[in-house]
Amino acid sequence: MKILILGGDGYLGWPTAMNLSNHGHEVMVVDNYLRRKLVQECGAKELFEVPDLNQRVDLWRDHSGHVLKIAIGDLLDWDFIEDVFKGFPPDAVIHYAEQPSGPYSMHGRREAALTLTNNLGVTFNVIQAVHEFVPECHIVKLGTMGEYGTPNIDIEEGWINIEHKGRSDRFLYPRQSGSLYHTTKIMDTDLLWYYTRLWNLRVTDLMQGPVYGLETAENQDRPELYSFFNYDDLFGTVLNRFIVQAAAGYPLTVYGAGGQTRGYLNIRDTLTCVQLSVENPPENGELRIYNQFTETFSVNDLANRVRKTGDSLGLSVKIDHLANARLEREEHYYNPVHQGLVELGLEPNLLTDQVLLDMFNVVLRYRDRIDSDTFLSGASHQ
Amino acid sequence: MKILILGGDGYLGWPTAMNLSNHGHEVMVVDNYLRRKLVQECGAKELFEVPDLNQRVDLWRDHSGHVLKIAIGDLLDWDFIEDVFKGFPPDAVIHYAEQPSGPYSMHGRREAALTLTNNLGVTFNVIQAVHEFVPECHIVKLGTMGEYGTPNIDIEEGWINIEHKGRSDRFLYPRQSGSLYHTTKIMDTDLLWYYTRLWNLRVTDLMQGPVYGLETAENQDRPELYSFFNYDDLFGTVLNRFIVQAAAGYPLTVYGAGGQTRGYLNIRDTLTCVQLSVENPPENGELRIYNQFTETFSVNDLANRVRKTGDSLGLSVKIDHLANARLEREEHYYNPVHQGLVELGLEPNLLTDQVLLDMFNVVLRYRDRIDSDTFLSGASHQ
Repeated sequence: MKILILGGDGYLGWPTAMNLSNHGHEVMVVDNYLRRKLVQECGAKELFEVPDLNQRVDLWRDHSGHVLKIAIGDLLDWDFIEDVFKGFPPDAVIHYAEQPSGPYSMHGRREAALTLTNNLGVTFNVIQAVHEFVPECHIVKLGTMGEYGTPNIDIEEGWINIEHKGRSDRFLYPRQSGSLYHTTKIMDTDLLWYYTRLWNLRVTDLMQGPVYGLETAENQDRPELYSFFNYDDLFGTVLNRFIVQAAAGYPLTVYGAGGQTRGYLNIRDTLTCVQLSVENPPENGELRIYNQFTETFSVNDLANRVRKTGDSLGLSVKIDHLANARLEREEHYYNPVHQGLVELGLEPNLLTDQVLLDMFNVVLRYRDRIDSDTFLSGASHQ
Repeated sequence: MKILILGGDGYLGWPTAMNLSNHGHEVMVVDNYLRRKLVQECGAKELFEVPDLNQRVDLWRDHSGHVLKIAIGDLLDWDFIEDVFKGFPPDAVIHYAEQPSGPYSMHGRREAALTLTNNLGVTFNVIQAVHEFVPECHIVKLGTMGEYGTPNIDIEEGWINIEHKGRSDRFLYPRQSGSLYHTTKIMDTDLLWYYTRLWNLRVTDLMQGPVYGLETAENQDRPELYSFFNYDDLFGTVLNRFIVQAAAGYPLTVYGAGGQTRGYLNIRDTLTCVQLSVENPPENGELRIYNQFTETFSVNDLANRVRKTGDSLGLSVKIDHLANARLEREEHYYNPVHQGLVELGLEPNLLTDQVLLDMFNVVLRYRDRIDSDTFLSGASHQ
């Protein structure tokens, strides 16, 4: 298949590009380096230098023999997106091209406006481009489990049958989230559902939980092919951040009571989920929604697991509870369904002690580079 | 109270400004004439000339003695909205400042992009301005009954208790709509609900049905104070359009089978509903939602009522069924609750034969100005 990956320079975009090209697909990667710019503006450091997309494509070609196409530009610019879709008419487009941080989106008016404008505007342009140039193309959109929030009833996979006053109907599962970033993902889903019905599009919306990990089948022991590994409080996901904190002898920073429970997955499983979704497109007019995670943990569960593994390595890990700026319950019911991707063939890589140990071993190689100021980069970003 | 009316030049904005100043409130009106520009671009004609805001304010002062403040500018521009809120810190802001046409929003990519950018962007800036400058200010936002679509269960007032697998929770009523315009209103509600929780805002979201009528207590027999009266297929609401078509001897244009049922209200009731909402603010942190209409009709009901009244005036009215571009069911269940505003004191002006006759009598005065090409202006707008 011809697959276009939007946001293909990102934490998940780049590993996805390697994975799909490794599985015989023809892949084009699009990015405008927004994430790199925002991380830089916040003064946060990556765990290691990451080559730019031109270099990455060369490195991947040298390693694997697979050639990726690239285009650098802003998908908010219609002329650019038109050129991309006309030059490389895809069978599937994977849409990661969004400002990806909840905390960043809550930081101030400017950050919120950027998140709203970028995320909604790119999703809108992707929909329009598919309709105008490749109406049979399958849109695979990265949503988030955060769209659901933490309701007091079971979370279904995107849709729910509601019985009310003796009648019933099927609805998009009602959603309310805890950050502006997550709210833009709710809006993305509303926008996709409107145009799916209007134009008979094929859409898969992947409600993904927080991802952890670094090594995949394609970059195992190849640090030059690693993805970003952020450990700051804006762009670093929780488990990755905890491991870097532990490696640096810094206390793990838990926001609030730590009872916040979410569905997590290994980056290897993200790649499998996206590949399974791409290779199993829905019918025209269908918005298919999968809940993309493999197991649930509270933040305290994760902190304790990291402490245990870190202690076994002689790191003497401490845990700090900080004030929580997010709009979230710190103790709550949480029981989300996640059957769809397993039925498509996903075999989860669960968070074993060995997985934690492997992550520690990679991070400890970069121990000398860890900048403790980065743990609180958001706090100083005004 | 000090009340800021955004979109105060519009079909509902201008009568609202007169009504609230007539009831003793201090009113400032803001507009950028977007609606006038879009109507002009589409080649549609108004039933009569409407003075600009400076002239309107003079006419209203001469007639009533009340002085309205005005500001002309684009609320997407932060510097402008900041000046407005600092110069006139309101107790309540009434937000009508949106591209208001479903058909316009479906016309093409450019029209859709304008609707998305304008509507979401202005709502975002209003929220930010209230938070920064007047955090106790009550936001009264015009939503639409179209956010709900036509579900097969009863439509509640914004919120629904869902029982599911032995547990229950309260949610925003799940919404899916039939145009991009209506979808932006769904997104507005999501945005308002996020920030209501985050910042303890006070918000009332009025899910309004299509409005009909022209004369109110403030402009009765004062044509120079009339609001816009669009009868084109993009900006004209259905009953207003039918009456002009009947007056011109043109067949009433029903899109599709005509079984589409909606909740309607007289423009006089819109003014009462908005006034009641403004004068009864919710608590901090509450998003209050009212369904704002007084009775339901199918399109065929309205066409038949107009034909009957028109025929009684010797007009010999015909009805045409045209292809329907909208994404809507043409026969469906429809049972929306609309108790909240009645409980606040609304006494509905229902659609009696006399009301129809009064509307005909106004429209017939302008019969010679009716341009039949305007009935299909959207069809020729490419």
